[in-house]
Amino acid sequence: MNATVPIIDSDVRHALKNPNELLPFLKEPWKHQVKQFGFRSPRTYGPPQLAHIDRAYTPKDEGAAADPERLHTFFLEAYGIGHAVLTGAMYGISVHSDPDYSAALAAAYNDHLLERWLPRSEKYKGAMTVATQDPQLAAMEIDRVGAHPDIVQISIGSGSQAPYGQRYYAPIFEAASRRGLPVAIHAGTEGGGIAGPPTAAGYVSDYLQFHTASSHSLMAHAISLIGEGVFERYPTLKIVLAGGGVSWLPHLMWRMDRSYRELKALVPTLKRKPSEYMRDHLYVTTQPIDESDSPEPMRQLLEMTDAENMLLFASGYPGWDFDDPARILPGLSGEARNRVLYGNAKRLFRL
Amino acid sequence: MNATVPIIDSDVRHALKNPNELLPFLKEPWKHQVKQFGFRSPRTYGPPQLAHIDRAYTPKDEGAAADPERLHTFFLEAYGIGHAVLTGAMYGISVHSDPDYSAALAAAYNDHLLERWLPRSEKYKGAMTVATQDPQLAAMEIDRVGAHPDIVQISIGSGSQAPYGQRYYAPIFEAASRRGLPVAIHAGTEGGGIAGPPTAAGYVSDYLQFHTASSHSLMAHAISLIGEGVFERYPTLKIVLAGGGVSWLPHLMWRMDRSYRELKALVPTLKRKPSEYMRDHLYVTTQPIDESDSPEPMRQLLEMTDAENMLLFASGYPGWDFDDPARILPGLSGEARNRVLYGNAKRLFRL
Repeated sequence: MNATVPIIDSDVRHALKNPNELLPFLKEPWKHQVKQFGFRSPRTYGPPQLAHIDRAYTPKDEGAAADPERLHTFFLEAYGIGHAVLTGAMYGISVHSDPDYSAALAAAYNDHLLERWLPRSEKYKGAMTVATQDPQLAAMEIDRVGAHPDIVQISIGSGSQAPYGQRYYAPIFEAASRRGLPVAIHAGTEGGGIAGPPTAAGYVSDYLQFHTASSHSLMAHAISLIGEGVFERYPTLKIVLAGGGVSWLPHLMWRMDRSYRELKALVPTLKRKPSEYMRDHLYVTTQPIDESDSPEPMRQLLEMTDAENMLLFASGYPGWDFDDPARILPGLSGEARNRVLYGNAKRLFRL
Repeated sequence: MNATVPIIDSDVRHALKNPNELLPFLKEPWKHQVKQFGFRSPRTYGPPQLAHIDRAYTPKDEGAAADPERLHTFFLEAYGIGHAVLTGAMYGISVHSDPDYSAALAAAYNDHLLERWLPRSEKYKGAMTVATQDPQLAAMEIDRVGAHPDIVQISIGSGSQAPYGQRYYAPIFEAASRRGLPVAIHAGTEGGGIAGPPTAAGYVSDYLQFHTASSHSLMAHAISLIGEGVFERYPTLKIVLAGGGVSWLPHLMWRMDRSYRELKALVPTLKRKPSEYMRDHLYVTTQPIDESDSPEPMRQLLEMTDAENMLLFASGYPGWDFDDPARILPGLSGEARNRVLYGNAKRLFRL
């Protein structure tokens, strides 16, 4: 069932054994501040502290995500992963109330990634992160770190005070475009910290509802990026929508195309059908895969939208909603499967 | 292409020639207040003042939606509509800041509907509305009006301060259940008035983006109603998700089923798979239909989710995003088409 090529996993959440690992990388005055007050994290919905629900969990790999050697052994080698994009979990810092503290923590995280992880295996590639609260600081951080040859992506959280197409955020996309790096928007932080409610209907009660709805923020950011003309301004920019599954693609394309057909006079910035921007500029990670019970409907659904050229395999290791590359998308085979597990990521990340 | 049965249109927006038509129905002290201050409406995103973009617009029917005779001639007869559920546009009152004023206006609207519209043709059926800000008042209004034989539905707006599954709103669903009436949640008022932002990413800039995203609030309300166990408490309750298209159905079902499979320990209230609640309790109106360019993908997509038993044809007449029953869903034929254009609505509204 698997690819005949080495798998590229576009979303591996490497971890910290302890947040204090970041202290040597944290600049002053933040280091002293953290020593005095501790790390301050924004409240978010989750995820729950339930590990590995969906896979054959073996205690032997517990904690492997925080150790470059053990992650290599217990995950990359065990699952046939040729390259892993390390995305960590610092992108959640964008919903913290303090933009300077958040920027400093993102920088420490990036330097920790560069020094402690990326040199340990040529299979490791890095997703740097930026705090989006202050887009000018974020752009400076992209320029500071983004040229490193092992940095292949900028990861930001989906939780925000405004949709990312709004011009306030333009410096982030301009810098990403200048550095030739895709920007991944990760679901999971919406509704946390200073972000607005996690659904268009308001705050939900529990993590089941939250997790079901966490595709919505990705769709909304995509609508905003297209609708505000961001891809007209940055024609080489690529956006990765991560952690929200994939089965919403036909809906988003068809609905926005219909709205555009009838309302295009409202948006003179747009020169093409929204679905054309989507096909040229969006990538979508597979995890957590939202599949039909039998393979055929999912295969049909992906075929409707040219998705085999937009999907990036992601395991989400070691999260509770991890996907095993050998088990997902059983309806995809041959060339289409190779693209999802390898070819699309190879092209996007220039591996 | 059309049904071999008289079409039931589940969403016809009959209108007022002038808001002052409501004055004779408005109770004191609101009547005096309106005479002194005028009608106060909450700000919402739209729709734009562009009529009839998507249909062969003929000026002869302009204003027909505000006249029971002309609506009959220019719409029902012209399009072969056997029954029209009149949904008006008062459901937007639920995002007004003043709960008492809103409840009074909803009551005036309902009485106007009962006196000026429903007696004019046996083809007209009524969707009463309630203001959701004060669910106790809403329940009293449902008990006051809901037993009328021509009232077949309760319409509320998708714009709200919290998802409708939250227990705060329980009196509305309890009253609907008691009266045997479905509750339709209409997209289009999210982000307006006292409602939260219209997307999980925040406020968007224009009506194209807003309209594209307006399916999100419907999905979020559905997730909430299921997740909070509303259908366990009210096992005969039916919910209509209106005005947000239909192509998100596979996504919502597959994603919530996967989340549930792994997280069911978080939600002891739920006894069944989320998609089973959806099939038993949800109906979805077709308008504005978000179709593929060619018929086959849309047909496949509907088949994936048993949608032919959940869809209700809706024209949205006379809105700018009106759908002609002869033109939508060309991939559906025979029995499936008859169900969407007639059978499902006949069952739901007991016509």
